[in-house]
Amino acid sequence: MSDEPLVIFTPSGKRGRVPAGTTVLAAARLLGVDLDSVCGGRGICSKCQVEPGRGEFAKHGVTVAADALSGINAVEARYDRVRGLRPGRRLGCQAQILSDAVIDVPPESQLHRQVIRKSAAERVMTMDPAVRPFYVEVVAPDLDDPAGDFQRLSRTLAEQWGIEGLRADLPVLARIQQVLRKAEWKVTALVGDDGGQRPILIDLVPGLLETPLCGLAIDLGSTTIAGHLVALDDGRVLASSGLMNPQIRFGEDLMSRVSYAMMNEGGAADMTASVRAGLGQLARSLADEAGVVPERIVDAVVVCNPVMHHLVLGIDPVELGQAPFAPATSDAMTVRAGEIGLQIAPAARAYVLPIIAGHVGADAAAVVLSERPQRSDKPVLIVDVGTNAEIILGDRDRVLACSSPTGPAFEGAQISSGQRAAPGAIERLRIDPQTGEPRFRIIGVDPWSDEPGFSEAAGATGISGICGSGIIEAVAEMRMAGIVDASGLIGSAAQTGTPRCVPQGRTHAYVIHDGTAQGGPLIAVTQGDIRAIQLAKSALYAGARLLMDEFGIDRPDRIVLAGAFGAHISPLHALVLGMIPDCPPERVTSAGNAAGTGARIALCSRAARAEIEEQVRRITRVETALAPRFQEHFVASNAIPHATDPFPALAGVVTLPNPVFNAGGDADRPRRRRR
Amino acid sequence: MSDEPLVIFTPSGKRGRVPAGTTVLAAARLLGVDLDSVCGGRGICSKCQVEPGRGEFAKHGVTVAADALSGINAVEARYDRVRGLRPGRRLGCQAQILSDAVIDVPPESQLHRQVIRKSAAERVMTMDPAVRPFYVEVVAPDLDDPAGDFQRLSRTLAEQWGIEGLRADLPVLARIQQVLRKAEWKVTALVGDDGGQRPILIDLVPGLLETPLCGLAIDLGSTTIAGHLVALDDGRVLASSGLMNPQIRFGEDLMSRVSYAMMNEGGAADMTASVRAGLGQLARSLADEAGVVPERIVDAVVVCNPVMHHLVLGIDPVELGQAPFAPATSDAMTVRAGEIGLQIAPAARAYVLPIIAGHVGADAAAVVLSERPQRSDKPVLIVDVGTNAEIILGDRDRVLACSSPTGPAFEGAQISSGQRAAPGAIERLRIDPQTGEPRFRIIGVDPWSDEPGFSEAAGATGISGICGSGIIEAVAEMRMAGIVDASGLIGSAAQTGTPRCVPQGRTHAYVIHDGTAQGGPLIAVTQGDIRAIQLAKSALYAGARLLMDEFGIDRPDRIVLAGAFGAHISPLHALVLGMIPDCPPERVTSAGNAAGTGARIALCSRAARAEIEEQVRRITRVETALAPRFQEHFVASNAIPHATDPFPALAGVVTLPNPVFNAGGDADRPRRRRR
Repeated sequence: MSDEPLVIFTPSGKRGRVPAGTTVLAAARLLGVDLDSVCGGRGICSKCQVEPGRGEFAKHGVTVAADALSGINAVEARYDRVRGLRPGRRLGCQAQILSDAVIDVPPESQLHRQVIRKSAAERVMTMDPAVRPFYVEVVAPDLDDPAGDFQRLSRTLAEQWGIEGLRADLPVLARIQQVLRKAEWKVTALVGDDGGQRPILIDLVPGLLETPLCGLAIDLGSTTIAGHLVALDDGRVLASSGLMNPQIRFGEDLMSRVSYAMMNEGGAADMTASVRAGLGQLARSLADEAGVVPERIVDAVVVCNPVMHHLVLGIDPVELGQAPFAPATSDAMTVRAGEIGLQIAPAARAYVLPIIAGHVGADAAAVVLSERPQRSDKPVLIVDVGTNAEIILGDRDRVLACSSPTGPAFEGAQISSGQRAAPGAIERLRIDPQTGEPRFRIIGVDPWSDEPGFSEAAGATGISGICGSGIIEAVAEMRMAGIVDASGLIGSAAQTGTPRCVPQGRTHAYVIHDGTAQGGPLIAVTQGDIRAIQLAKSALYAGARLLMDEFGIDRPDRIVLAGAFGAHISPLHALVLGMIPDCPPERVTSAGNAAGTGARIALCSRAARAEIEEQVRRITRVETALAPRFQEHFVASNAIPHATDPFPALAGVVTLPNPVFNAGGDADRPRRRRR
Repeated sequence: MSDEPLVIFTPSGKRGRVPAGTTVLAAARLLGVDLDSVCGGRGICSKCQVEPGRGEFAKHGVTVAADALSGINAVEARYDRVRGLRPGRRLGCQAQILSDAVIDVPPESQLHRQVIRKSAAERVMTMDPAVRPFYVEVVAPDLDDPAGDFQRLSRTLAEQWGIEGLRADLPVLARIQQVLRKAEWKVTALVGDDGGQRPILIDLVPGLLETPLCGLAIDLGSTTIAGHLVALDDGRVLASSGLMNPQIRFGEDLMSRVSYAMMNEGGAADMTASVRAGLGQLARSLADEAGVVPERIVDAVVVCNPVMHHLVLGIDPVELGQAPFAPATSDAMTVRAGEIGLQIAPAARAYVLPIIAGHVGADAAAVVLSERPQRSDKPVLIVDVGTNAEIILGDRDRVLACSSPTGPAFEGAQISSGQRAAPGAIERLRIDPQTGEPRFRIIGVDPWSDEPGFSEAAGATGISGICGSGIIEAVAEMRMAGIVDASGLIGSAAQTGTPRCVPQGRTHAYVIHDGTAQGGPLIAVTQGDIRAIQLAKSALYAGARLLMDEFGIDRPDRIVLAGAFGAHISPLHALVLGMIPDCPPERVTSAGNAAGTGARIALCSRAARAEIEEQVRRITRVETALAPRFQEHFVASNAIPHATDPFPALAGVVTLPNPVFNAGGDADRPRRRRR
């Protein structure tokens, strides 16, 4: 035994003795080292490239001779000639171990390579996609072997790759004879794990597949459908695209869609057809953008809220619109991609994340998968702001979740000058506390409104309205500048000392931009706008508060703002507004589109799918709709900031003036400042 | 322990002690006794009816007291009042065992009841269908339990019936919420085994399902599609129907269909659509005939030849038309019934039997399942006659199979007066060896042509032609009457002594029925007809002979004629013709439509599916197309009877005259007889 060469693999550190003459690939398999191979050791895929060490390895206690590995053989020489092999690299399937050796497996040769995921906190993710390519050479049929082509392919995959019990859908069975013959029996089988117990043949490709397999990560929202096309070898994003959910014509928000299903015979079916058509369009545009044929898109992951979940699966959502909000099904599902409108590889599956409850969706599950509160030592509050806010609070011990009906105000809807986030919309705003004068930035234009070059730059887009993040900053700034009091009332010009406060009916409005003089519309924050924002932020805060009660804490250790909108909210302004509980502003971070990130993680990793399925079973759902305490918190948090919690963290950062305005009366202390 | 009552179940003889107070149903489950129950012991389905014994049971060594079981309780009394309980019967789920008892389980209370299958040999079959009903009462959702309705249903099925890991297709998921609520959470789940490892929800029915579930057994032939609608509780046939395969417009026989696929872009797809439409039509007409709603048809089994197998599955059959005749897939398959055109229960599956080789189909596998040569002590030859004949020879040790291209002559095609078996066709025929005069019977008319009442009865249908079994009898009778010689030549009137032999070109024809005098067409057997039958019977015999060579025997112990046509062939005439090897006529039997019977067996029994899958793997395929010996046998067996084997078995039954006719010359010994 000890005459056999010792081989040590880095960076894993796995080591063992193997018979002299064993190939590096065989040794890696023997020792459980993660070394990729698609061609099964034929020297054609080059996935098993390694870097042999030489000389003294004191750390490992071995000295590696110059001839520890066999010399370059004909297969390697040919590969090097045709494709080129980097200096110092060897093909693991060809190089044989002759004496003690140290072999480094570079990251790109690891099948389950770890990749860094860019998000608020960079995190490492291990690639473990559900569909993988396997190159095989199938024995041609003859008269003495009456087995079908599929049976011979399956047998080869079992013998050479240990894939037992392969299944195939009819559309793939219909292709295999032609592919096998065209490719002269040398093919790459794309084999998938569809959540069942037997592997499934997703497609069969002639020869050795040279291009990476791709998958779709889809965040299916009520308003927009966003998707990423992801390479399944290393998780990189090849294309990103989005489109309006075509269902929008059946109603702006979720409840209006549920109503449409209730009131119209076949209404749910119409909406199902509509959203599936949208998914199909998204898949096509992503494939076009990345220059990838749809057949190479072999997997998909969908995250969405419960209503979209039911509609895309063809289930009437009416039960989600009334207590007890029972979903038809809540577990993760694997369906045929074609069934939900995705015309990709013929047998591709789509994995739909589990929904947490009838009102907390697979999108929230994706946020949990992305942000992993269950791995946090201290309680973290995650808020995904949208028409419905999903709120998650948890730590290592337990995770709670609820949803809260914030309505569309945070998205700029039901706001007098509101609009969706699009070029021309005011997205950031500051008010000088001394003069009451605003300065702002619009989407698509770099300079602020008081900086040089603004007018020229803004000329192209115009100033068209105010979007969700803009209205939040506006209301918070108005509060900090003493233009709005704690109850949410806008003061008069006399009370606030700025002529931008103009009467409007029996209340006042604050004029941000007067189109008559400068061109463009009049953009103002009205008393109605403030009330709409107060309702929305109270709902959001009350949900978070309910979870904190349940959890038994007064404030979270940190807060994560998720969602495309969450990425644009200023933590300080959210705190001033009382949208979120008190927390040092530097501990409020944005996770970007965490639901979309979660979808990408699930696409790249079967382990992540298992993790979120397990985690969702452990999440405690908290019901807001019928909880009396939710109502209490909702009423109590109407003030700006809310009056429920003290704000020590905020206290050190901003000073909030405390005027008291009466709707029709005088201010207690009119401000004297002028510009 | 021994204080506990002893309970003995008959007819199984299973016995054991159970705690006093145990219900009969619980005791049966404990002891592994096959006692049915759909409602799970709620006293509403009455499937668990038993007959308790009383008095002395010397055989079992127990005496049963009058009060061995608890008295009739309220549930039983109510059931008896509403539905009626036969005297002496008890509901097994209500009656409790109080002291030693003997309990008889009547056949209709056995879940896996044995049924007698009517065929050539009556056989016993054990019911074990793939889909079964399970009654459950599901807990309604509430705000504290956010699990989906499907998850609560699954949980209940797991708890009460041990069904773990239930799956559901989208169309069923889309129905369950409405069904559960309409039925106030009391439902019957139809749970299926689709050959995968997790059970599947085929449908959900409100309340307790009172009517039996049904399945389709389909024999998909090139010419006709025949189907049975079968009750899955006891295997009885509720309706039978057949229709022409609509594919017939693409070509009469299999090879012309393969050619159509080769020569026409999209040709295979057109034929797939056509045959699927045919299956859909068959399913509808069977459901209509039996008065069963299509939703209650929850399973289907399809048997067919390899070309139809590929076409119905949507696979191009071109490879089946050329050596090495490799099928795309040969294993048994379970597909969604809707995928192959069967619009039955929303998630119903269709099980397609394995094909034995590229030229020996799932229909032959079904014949093996029906006739079970593998259980025979001595070699049995099974011949399924059609456009292609499937031939199987086997015993306990080994089973061989081949197919032989007999062509359509045996089905009345390519015969001058030939027609399909339909009213008006001559199906039986006898020739008086003394006078050369024929007498015959036509389909749809009881009397023979020389019996009283024939003309009146035949008037309705007319005499329209001669079908497959008729032409076989005609040629064999002509041979026995000395009208045809061993080489197949028809003699002249002078040579044969009957004026019915009339000149036709340079050969002769034998007139069976002269329409000019009696009305109707002229029906004759021409020299060309004899040649066509000789080609067909030589191909059939050569195939059988090849298998016997392989097997190492000179003659089989018995012969089974299978196929709808096989049912109508007279064994004696088949022997005289030399279609089949020598065998005592009484050992030649007909199995009727054995392929259809095999389909019904597979429909009623999962064990039978496993059996045929295992058996097909063990069958030795013999290739006729390229075997030189097949050609030799084919040429050598052209004579009537064939000249290859001696006919000792036949010798004792019939005497064959041996005239020798020359096509244009004299007979060696003209016959003198006249009527």
